Amino acid sequence: MSVADALDSLKHLPYEDIGFARIDHHRMLRQGIPEVIFAKDKQIKDITAIAETMIKKKSRILITKATKSVYKSISLLSRRYRKSARFYKRSGLITVGGSLKKTGLVAVLCAGTSDIPVAEEAVVTASFLGSKAEIMADVGVAGLHRLVDAGKVFSNAKVLVVVAGMEGALPSVIGGMTDKPIIAVPTSVGYGTSFSGLTALFAMLNSCVPGIAVMNIDNGFGAGVLAHKINKRQDT
Amino acid sequence: MSVADALDSLKHLPYEDIGFARIDHHRMLRQGIPEVIFAKDKQIKDITAIAETMIKKKSRILITKATKSVYKSISLLSRRYRKSARFYKRSGLITVGGSLKKTGLVAVLCAGTSDIPVAEEAVVTASFLGSKAEIMADVGVAGLHRLVDAGKVFSNAKVLVVVAGMEGALPSVIGGMTDKPIIAVPTSVGYGTSFSGLTALFAMLNSCVPGIAVMNIDNGFGAGVLAHKINKRQDT
Amino acid sequence: MSVADALDSLKHLPYEDIGFARIDHHRMLRQGIPEVIFAKDKQIKDITAIAETMIKKKSRILITKATKSVYKSISLLSRRYRKSARFYKRSGLITVGGSLKKTGLVAVLCAGTSDIPVAEEAVVTASFLGSKAEIMADVGVAGLHRLVDAGKVFSNAKVLVVVAGMEGALPSVIGGMTDKPIIAVPTSVGYGTSFSGLTALFAMLNSCVPGIAVMNIDNGFGAGVLAHKINKRQDT
Amino acid sequence: MSVADALDSLKHLPYEDIGFARIDHHRMLRQGIPEVIFAKDKQIKDITAIAETMIKKKSRILITKATKSVYKSISLLSRRYRKSARFYKRSGLITVGGSLKKTGLVAVLCAGTSDIPVAEEAVVTASFLGSKAEIMADVGVAGLHRLVDAGKVFSNAKVLVVVAGMEGALPSVIGGMTDKPIIAVPTSVGYGTSFSGLTALFAMLNSCVPGIAVMNIDNGFGAGVLAHKINKRQDT
Amino acid sequence: MSVADALDSLKHLPYEDIGFARIDHHRMLRQGIPEVIFAKDKQIKDITAIAETMIKKKSRILITKATKSVYKSISLLSRRYRKSARFYKRSGLITVGGSLKKTGLVAVLCAGTSDIPVAEEAVVTASFLGSKAEIMADVGVAGLHRLVDAGKVFSNAKVLVVVAGMEGALPSVIGGMTDKPIIAVPTSVGYGTSFSGLTALFAMLNSCVPGIAVMNIDNGFGAGVLAHKINKRQDT
Amino acid sequence: MSVADALDSLKHLPYEDIGFARIDHHRMLRQGIPEVIFAKDKQIKDITAIAETMIKKKSRILITKATKSVYKSISLLSRRYRKSARFYKRSGLITVGGSLKKTGLVAVLCAGTSDIPVAEEAVVTASFLGSKAEIMADVGVAGLHRLVDAGKVFSNAKVLVVVAGMEGALPSVIGGMTDKPIIAVPTSVGYGTSFSGLTALFAMLNSCVPGIAVMNIDNGFGAGVLAHKINKRQDT
Amino acid sequence: MSVADALDSLKHLPYEDIGFARIDHHRMLRQGIPEVIFAKDKQIKDITAIAETMIKKKSRILITKATKSVYKSISLLSRRYRKSARFYKRSGLITVGGSLKKTGLVAVLCAGTSDIPVAEEAVVTASFLGSKAEIMADVGVAGLHRLVDAGKVFSNAKVLVVVAGMEGALPSVIGGMTDKPIIAVPTSVGYGTSFSGLTALFAMLNSCVPGIAVMNIDNGFGAGVLAHKINKRQDT
Amino acid sequence: MSVADALDSLKHLPYEDIGFARIDHHRMLRQGIPEVIFAKDKQIKDITAIAETMIKKKSRILITKATKSVYKSISLLSRRYRKSARFYKRSGLITVGGSLKKTGLVAVLCAGTSDIPVAEEAVVTASFLGSKAEIMADVGVAGLHRLVDAGKVFSNAKVLVVVAGMEGALPSVIGGMTDKPIIAVPTSVGYGTSFSGLTALFAMLNSCVPGIAVMNIDNGFGAGVLAHKINKRQDT
Repeated sequence: MSVADALDSLKHLPYEDIGFARIDHHRMLRQGIPEVIFAKDKQIKDITAIAETMIKKKSRILITKATKSVYKSISLLSRRYRKSARFYKRSGLITVGGSLKKTGLVAVLCAGTSDIPVAEEAVVTASFLGSKAEIMADVGVAGLHRLVDAGKVFSNAKVLVVVAGMEGALPSVIGGMTDKPIIAVPTSVGYGTSFSGLTALFAMLNSCVPGIAVMNIDNGFGAGVLAHKINKRQDT
Repeated sequence: MSVADALDSLKHLPYEDIGFARIDHHRMLRQGIPEVIFAKDKQIKDITAIAETMIKKKSRILITKATKSVYKSISLLSRRYRKSARFYKRSGLITVGGSLKKTGLVAVLCAGTSDIPVAEEAVVTASFLGSKAEIMADVGVAGLHRLVDAGKVFSNAKVLVVVAGMEGALPSVIGGMTDKPIIAVPTSVGYGTSFSGLTALFAMLNSCVPGIAVMNIDNGFGAGVLAHKINKRQDT
Repeated sequence: MSVADALDSLKHLPYEDIGFARIDHHRMLRQGIPEVIFAKDKQIKDITAIAETMIKKKSRILITKATKSVYKSISLLSRRYRKSARFYKRSGLITVGGSLKKTGLVAVLCAGTSDIPVAEEAVVTASFLGSKAEIMADVGVAGLHRLVDAGKVFSNAKVLVVVAGMEGALPSVIGGMTDKPIIAVPTSVGYGTSFSGLTALFAMLNSCVPGIAVMNIDNGFGAGVLAHKINKRQDT
Repeated sequence: MSVADALDSLKHLPYEDIGFARIDHHRMLRQGIPEVIFAKDKQIKDITAIAETMIKKKSRILITKATKSVYKSISLLSRRYRKSARFYKRSGLITVGGSLKKTGLVAVLCAGTSDIPVAEEAVVTASFLGSKAEIMADVGVAGLHRLVDAGKVFSNAKVLVVVAGMEGALPSVIGGMTDKPIIAVPTSVGYGTSFSGLTALFAMLNSCVPGIAVMNIDNGFGAGVLAHKINKRQDT
Repeated sequence: MSVADALDSLKHLPYEDIGFARIDHHRMLRQGIPEVIFAKDKQIKDITAIAETMIKKKSRILITKATKSVYKSISLLSRRYRKSARFYKRSGLITVGGSLKKTGLVAVLCAGTSDIPVAEEAVVTASFLGSKAEIMADVGVAGLHRLVDAGKVFSNAKVLVVVAGMEGALPSVIGGMTDKPIIAVPTSVGYGTSFSGLTALFAMLNSCVPGIAVMNIDNGFGAGVLAHKINKRQDT
Repeated sequence: MSVADALDSLKHLPYEDIGFARIDHHRMLRQGIPEVIFAKDKQIKDITAIAETMIKKKSRILITKATKSVYKSISLLSRRYRKSARFYKRSGLITVGGSLKKTGLVAVLCAGTSDIPVAEEAVVTASFLGSKAEIMADVGVAGLHRLVDAGKVFSNAKVLVVVAGMEGALPSVIGGMTDKPIIAVPTSVGYGTSFSGLTALFAMLNSCVPGIAVMNIDNGFGAGVLAHKINKRQDT
Repeated sequence: MSVADALDSLKHLPYEDIGFARIDHHRMLRQGIPEVIFAKDKQIKDITAIAETMIKKKSRILITKATKSVYKSISLLSRRYRKSARFYKRSGLITVGGSLKKTGLVAVLCAGTSDIPVAEEAVVTASFLGSKAEIMADVGVAGLHRLVDAGKVFSNAKVLVVVAGMEGALPSVIGGMTDKPIIAVPTSVGYGTSFSGLTALFAMLNSCVPGIAVMNIDNGFGAGVLAHKINKRQDT
Repeated sequence: MSVADALDSLKHLPYEDIGFARIDHHRMLRQGIPEVIFAKDKQIKDITAIAETMIKKKSRILITKATKSVYKSISLLSRRYRKSARFYKRSGLITVGGSLKKTGLVAVLCAGTSDIPVAEEAVVTASFLGSKAEIMADVGVAGLHRLVDAGKVFSNAKVLVVVAGMEGALPSVIGGMTDKPIIAVPTSVGYGTSFSGLTALFAMLNSCVPGIAVMNIDNGFGAGVLAHKINKRQDT
């Protein structure tokens, strides 16, 4: 059997070719996550065409790094879904379609007020996929006692997402206090040698607490996906 | 014979001095590619002056990284060529002059919808120079089965151009399936540690598949030129 | 209540001060992972003194990035444990103490033969902590069909660890085929613009498959810890 | 048809599992290049085990970035092939097996005497794969007249490989003189801000001559592979 | 006593939760510096909400990296404080609340006219916290004699802040002339390889004069805080 | 004698303190170059105040990296000099005051049309200081024969300034043809891995032709100063 | 008065020219710190010649980054001082001459056992200059309760030096608990993206606690000098 | 006339092909500097073969970055020249052949004792080419008064070479005091963020004194060449 034959056998996996995009309707089955539209660097007419194709298949939709203009175009498009369409201004997320039944708890902590957009991205994503998710803002390492009220949320969670910019120290400090899986998300908050989030990223990759999962800079979406995957498994 | 004498002998190679530019009308003969105008960092009046000089010599013209304003100025300029002048909005290419007879096939694959501008630059360039060229969009590694329909294009091509941003993995995966020459073009699509395309570039330079030709970031034009050079030779 | 008082209340958490080190015997309770000795940059006499202190408390021991000389010193030290002490030459791990009952399965895949040391570090760590763990070597993207026999291991695993150097493409390709949590570990295998693993690291952080957990370069140990934490939870 | 089924169909592509490596005996058919052993970062006993497996299948063998010790172990191994085994000291290449009938010409030019190891890697690789290949050393841009005698070689070649360290200017200068495809290889020759070859690499990626194919630093092997692929096609 | 208990004891440290922020009213007692609002990356409505909470507690307020729009919102907010609110246009600082009695002297020197915004940030911060502070502008190393009139200020100061962009040489030169503690602040003034202040930062970290304290790029605020801490202590 | 005394003796070197700037009227005597105003990062009112102070002393004035708005303010200011004030739009230079008698010749060559702004900065600066200066544009390495007509200018010059972006190869090629001092200026022309001129800078620092003087990116002004210093000396 | 005259007046500041070095015997008076010998990159015979010159002047001596061989040469040299010469093996410091009367307290905290060499450098330096200094090792953020016993040392200190590698989080955490001046020293402890200490350095420069003084990587010596300068002042 | 013809005319420029090298005997005439052998990255037998070819033509020889072993091989080779062969141990230079008549003065200043090897490279090179050259060591910015005795040398020189590592501030300070051309050479002396000389390099490129010529890191040889070119011209 040749490679061509082997590739041929892959032909039966369904997708839909709309010229500039090939939409993978079975991704939910295969990867556990539906195809998500990354809006940055895409033209609005391309985004809406993809969304339209998905809506026809009755898929629920998640769009990341979107602007208000994208939201307006999407709203016009989805008559049926219009009620369900929602735009999260701080994080630039758009969700279309009803919400799922939620189980388990993902706790999202962030170091400062400026980190909220990324934390919101994680919370909304995990929630969209079917996890309960709660945010705890402004618990940076310069005032650790602010972390205390978070106690109950903290201890009920199955997985923690920790969002921080600048020196990115929060995951290490929280990692010293818990045995739960931690997902660290560096943000581009800061200036000078914060290098738009690189310093926080590298600090997190070098944490003295072993086993912290690290995401790309400002990637709250990825953190939400991973948190959901870990959380979901726990209830099987 | 002194260096001065040697340089003197180069004097007979024709070019045209228009003050701020020296236009090399014989470049086609010498390098197989006509002089191309790189519009970025140039003033519109300089671009149109260069184009005007070339038009007088009845040269076909290719302008890269151009804006709509450049296109408008060029259109006004070339009465005779006006019908033939064309602006490719996604890639910012402008072509002036009739198309050549085309032979051979260059297949241009790109990983995502956001990579299309760079892929278009490669397709139009190769086509302008005299190759047949086809684009296959949105065949990224997260859904390899989408690559399948590309089968026929793929197997008829003499050379493949593979365009990808983010982690830049597509050339390696395709390289495992074919013995055709592959030209990889990293794009600036992505955010955070994609470093505006550097990560894709370095991934491509480090491919575990040996012998992949790599281009500068977003340099679809260069890929089109090289693809044409390889393709053209194959038919001699 | 002042900060001093608050800190005072932390005083009752036990640790043991041996001058140049403060050994945290309750870390297992608090973080789910015993204190681990990172041998690089430490003098052998310091490592053995720490190990000796832990042995007195009957702790099981894990030492990372160790050399054969460290192993020899440790062997001399632990009469009682000698039988159980083991040195993993490729990865430089040392384990001391009997093995735990193991549940769940962590599958560790690596792209090339040169990546085995890091993969071994992940396998031995997860295993030491109480997970079943299996390695599948040399399944790089240039010959994807080699991945097939891995099928059974693959589908029984609760979490996947994917180890790769050079262009770091393997996690993306595997991520397109499964809904299991994936932990990606870049290795320093390569030369030139592999930048001792940075290129693979950045490629993994930019994967087009969302939700991949990324570790520091060559950090198989961290991957083993995280894989165990995720795996362990699945069985509660 | 599920992904598992699709993967299953790939099962029939042959490879041989020797524990720490999976040897891809059909790579020659699929990619046009046999599996090549990259010796750096591999243990000698692993290299020889892989070579032994290939020898049993009567494969010709190419080992890159090898040392004299590797060569000695390989020599002991291959009684039958011993006469054919050869070690290229400057480049660290080992070839085992008789040479192929050669067609076409690959010309390899290098800027300085210090660049010869990388140039040799390209020449021997192209030659091993079935191309004629010739080297022209020490033709750097500070004395362009030295390039002249190269005239005949130059004009008979189907493709040029240009090897240079330091400022990496040679490909641009040669690119201004010819319409043949050019493959540029940066070398780590230099000091200070040559950054072990990065400066030459970036200079080549930014050449004002369009369509130059660029390789990783010191990757003469990759250049040889690509040169052969382009050369081979020209004669069909 | 568990970690949870220990954390519990921290609960009595007062802070105020306003949803997106947790305001630490006792920071003055604990760290000697009141909570400061970093305006960059924050929404104006968040900044004013935080300020409002602090005003209710009669805290004096310092806001850094603010714009005129922030100042306008703050002015509207603080009826009582309005007279005391002040906006420093060059540095983007806002102070609210009466000034403290000042002791000791902090001398702030800057290399060029373009460095004044950062120097002003240091002067106003130190002054707000209770130090006397004076600025001496345009005393760069290309005309050292301009430093002379600064003599009296210079010799009365308890600590020096030295602000410079470009090559960042001024702290080294001043360090050769005095035994007072020096705080060096690199600025983003320059172009090309000034790398937005990185070159000045690294030059200062490598000063041949030992013991110079270095701040992040453009961090006049941090310099003002440290200068005040050192100055304040000197009078006890 | 103490350092204070020594510094005291420097007091007699004249400068003028205008609050935010200390103007060094004797710099011409000491350094051979009058004080020059670097407009980038300065406020227009500061620039005009400095210029006004210099005009009162009848100094000729050179302002670099200026905008049209700066020019307008300067024009309003200098009634007497108005006729002599001139704005060079491409390079952003402003000169005020009559021109000097010129001796010697500085030849400024640039690789492409996009490099002209930087070349103009060098030409105008050298000319302002008292050198004859001529520009030769668009003589890049892809068409070396265009360099030929430059022959006469070239051989009469006392020093050459070579301006290039992208791969920065031109100084090396010219360096192979002449024994005159060469000053190389990298420009930020290019994209992707041109890194805003860093690649050209590093290429020039690594030239295989020894003794090339290198300037900061886009620093045509510095090149003009150095060229004048070398040229001027030649006639004594 | 000309610059030459001004420079002339500096002539009376004493130094001693020994050919390859000019020893500045009055540095103690001028900068408060005697001239210190930085041994790295110097030949042993040069180091001993400098030391010999200083010994003749009865200066106390501090040598940094020295090896055992340097210590042996120094020991042979200084008969009179031999008893007082001491080599600190972990940090590579050599001190020669009796100890001063010490006042005030500098507390040096370090995150891990591997950071001790740098911490020792700070302790010995501050002590040599006349401060009391104590070290507290292994108090990293993964087990904050270990910090508690440090309470008394901590609260008596006039200034804190905090030494940490990897993610460099310790200064931020300690900064949240105290109002004392903090000097942060990044170390090269770590691997992969610790970048030999750069990550810790940038984390410290970006601390969310304002006013932390940062030193070059592994520069315990500089920290000791600054700590002493701040400490000394406090007692006047 | 074709390019081939043009290249043909260059054929008459003499060079000698010895297989792995093409020696350019007329470089002295063309570039004013004889061909120089860069020993780093070259095999000893290649170096001696090149030297032998040059000796036969009675060329004087300069070898840079050489070791003692290279010197020994060269000594054996050149019977006739043996007396004249000299090895400069600190800088690794080898000169062969009698010295020229010297005119003009090149003053080489270096900041610290550790910078002497690079300064020596500049002095010996300029001297070999026919300039008088003197070294002034250890005149760093932390003790500017040490510069004073240098007065006479300083004022007689036609050009200054300033060598410094670490923060690279010396060229700026000297540039404020003189109108002579300055050539700055950064050295790799330092540690941590000195980045093996990059910090000094960038500081020099950003000097606030305009028109300083900058060389590659540790490139004393290049500085010597440029200094000689500038010096030589002054006497015509």
